[in-house]
Amino acid sequence: MKLVQPRTPSGFTEYLPNEQLEFNRLLDIIKDTYARYGFSPLDTPILELSEVLLAKGGGETEQQVYRFEHGRNDLTMRYDLTVPLARYVAEHEGTLVFPFRRSQIGKVYRAERAQAGRFREFYQCDIDVIGSDSPIVDAELPAIINEIFTKFAFGEFTIRLNDRRILNGFFESIGLSNVSREILRSVDKMEKVTQKELVKELQSVNLDNEQIERILDFTSINGTNDEIISKLRAMNSSSSLFNVGVDMLEALIKALRVMNVPENHFKIDLKIARGLDYYTGTVYETILNDYPEIGSVCSGGRYDNLAEYYTKTSLPGIGISIGLTRLFYTLREIGVISSPSQSPAKLVVMPIDEQEIPFSIALITKLREANIAALLYTERNAVSKKLRYADRMGFEYALVVGVNEVESNTVSLKHMKTGESKTIPLDTLVEYISNA
Amino acid sequence: MKLVQPRTPSGFTEYLPNEQLEFNRLLDIIKDTYARYGFSPLDTPILELSEVLLAKGGGETEQQVYRFEHGRNDLTMRYDLTVPLARYVAEHEGTLVFPFRRSQIGKVYRAERAQAGRFREFYQCDIDVIGSDSPIVDAELPAIINEIFTKFAFGEFTIRLNDRRILNGFFESIGLSNVSREILRSVDKMEKVTQKELVKELQSVNLDNEQIERILDFTSINGTNDEIISKLRAMNSSSSLFNVGVDMLEALIKALRVMNVPENHFKIDLKIARGLDYYTGTVYETILNDYPEIGSVCSGGRYDNLAEYYTKTSLPGIGISIGLTRLFYTLREIGVISSPSQSPAKLVVMPIDEQEIPFSIALITKLREANIAALLYTERNAVSKKLRYADRMGFEYALVVGVNEVESNTVSLKHMKTGESKTIPLDTLVEYISNA
Repeated sequence: MKLVQPRTPSGFTEYLPNEQLEFNRLLDIIKDTYARYGFSPLDTPILELSEVLLAKGGGETEQQVYRFEHGRNDLTMRYDLTVPLARYVAEHEGTLVFPFRRSQIGKVYRAERAQAGRFREFYQCDIDVIGSDSPIVDAELPAIINEIFTKFAFGEFTIRLNDRRILNGFFESIGLSNVSREILRSVDKMEKVTQKELVKELQSVNLDNEQIERILDFTSINGTNDEIISKLRAMNSSSSLFNVGVDMLEALIKALRVMNVPENHFKIDLKIARGLDYYTGTVYETILNDYPEIGSVCSGGRYDNLAEYYTKTSLPGIGISIGLTRLFYTLREIGVISSPSQSPAKLVVMPIDEQEIPFSIALITKLREANIAALLYTERNAVSKKLRYADRMGFEYALVVGVNEVESNTVSLKHMKTGESKTIPLDTLVEYISNA
Repeated sequence: MKLVQPRTPSGFTEYLPNEQLEFNRLLDIIKDTYARYGFSPLDTPILELSEVLLAKGGGETEQQVYRFEHGRNDLTMRYDLTVPLARYVAEHEGTLVFPFRRSQIGKVYRAERAQAGRFREFYQCDIDVIGSDSPIVDAELPAIINEIFTKFAFGEFTIRLNDRRILNGFFESIGLSNVSREILRSVDKMEKVTQKELVKELQSVNLDNEQIERILDFTSINGTNDEIISKLRAMNSSSSLFNVGVDMLEALIKALRVMNVPENHFKIDLKIARGLDYYTGTVYETILNDYPEIGSVCSGGRYDNLAEYYTKTSLPGIGISIGLTRLFYTLREIGVISSPSQSPAKLVVMPIDEQEIPFSIALITKLREANIAALLYTERNAVSKKLRYADRMGFEYALVVGVNEVESNTVSLKHMKTGESKTIPLDTLVEYISNA
């Protein structure tokens, strides 16, 4: 038979078992935290009707989708989780209970040019609250980011906060509301381009040097969170949009403190604008302090209207998204993430000979009944080979069962890292492992 | 703006929040059980190169795939999890540790004609052990099925066991090894067609009436598991294939007993053949005793060669698969599955007024820190409306926080089903909820 070379298309990633276990551990942290805050999980189809998914039309995304015809259907693979959410909420508007808090963790598809660190299939981990304008929700999202990244333990991180109403109010107050959209986009790029390029971009929308300087001064206002709020208040802005933004940001900061989020984990930063047009209030970005070059690892914000292409009902909301695939890839490249074990089980049970198998089965059944994950290794080979398997798999413990163990109703527990062996009576094994 | 009607393509399913929570609960039971038995989770791309995925060629599946070209790539969405496993194992042959125990839970795609209960996108939940011929593994899989369906609690179920070596050995002993493949396929359909149709089918491969009668007699051998083994032994078959099969089945039965699998949950049934050609040893089907019309809800078996299209290495293995989407759909239709709650949180915290919000945040933060999922409801409306929300969402408890509660450092815990309210001191709340 002619063999086909087994391979995946470029830009599509899959992990070895040890990597996958570590990736799933991170996914579970996200999932558990989202659930603890009362977000209901959602799972929409990966294929949608093109007419529906691409209702907005235009834009970069449309050129980067996997779209094809099948029978009478024109289908597109989802490229994010926000458009399917908009479609879902509009479709089930009459049935859903609002505010609707939903989480969705799933793969999305972008037919981008393949390059290192760019993926055509990747996970997004989103939460959104639809139909609430309560500022408490604006604070819950960074509290969730704080929990997740604290548990991730990739070192210190900073959730950078801003409110587009402050930016737009400020632009308004210096007579620039007609080009606020363009300025926002430039501000969003501020940290990625040189000052010269930035100035050039702002000049291209007809800003004069004084206006540019005021924008640069404004966005670089610094200090503690309270100091920045004070400085903003001291501006005595006549823009009510500006003042609403400041009020909201202050309320958010206060709520975060009641939520026990450490002060050094969140920081008002007036340079945060986010590129997407549809944000209208609070905006977030998150950076890992030790790896700022990765860029934002969790972003989002508040918007006025989620589903305008599908329904006349105005659906304001707020959401954040973690792009776990890229984050995982980058941190693995840097060497921050290690993943020593190939098995979800901590221990392996190894009968030395055929005759020890029933004893081993009985023993592993007890462990599993006590909710301890364990693998039974019944291949026929020498003890040295068995232990080599246990070592390569990265088990913490190997339970070797031989004639002596069966006779004395004990097991020999080998700690794989130290090489130390211990004899443990069968009836205390579950307790011993549970406490280990 | 012209609105687009929000909808999904037919054959693609998505759930309302309460249904999704129930579906996920079942998924988690499967996932946890697979992990407890030491299966490493895998997550392969949904899109594969057509040349690779369809290497086998021909067959019904190839006509039922979503296949399209994008740029220079000819791509196909995976239609099962077995072919990607074969590709993965062959691709990473040099790195993986064998025996390789992998689980994969994910969506697969079939461009079938849409009809009720048929899905174009559905979940498969698979485990396979590659590179082991230990008969203990043959017993672990039904032990896993037993655990999962016991936890599902859809009533009694029966795991039906057979071994293709017994069937093929028997066909050999009556001089029919040249048409064993065709007979297996007929036997597999035995319960879905009339006896007349079955006889006709067997006649079409040139079986005479005596041979047909012997096959019908053989496959209807009945009794307890031990009785069936005895009857098979009493046949004194000269076929070594037959005898190996009987040995294996007997070993399997014995191991299941040591694994504490209740005797009424597994049953040797010589009619079980499975349709697919590639099974070579043990085969499984599982039926829900109260809903036999659903057919097998978990099937699988042992095969000699997983990845022959990708590698010359012989990779024997064994696996099972649960098609959860169809099972869930059918049991919901029948009314077996109910799903009363819309939220992963058991309780909602509801400040009556603005001024109770900080107290409420502090309180819900404590609950969440104690790993209790809780939702904070801060919409401004009347208490009656708040309680209506709590009721529609299906929360077990509503914690209403008013002036009195803040002053006395208590909360008012309303049990939504009984309508009963209780005042609980704040410092015993976590304990109370944890024990509730």
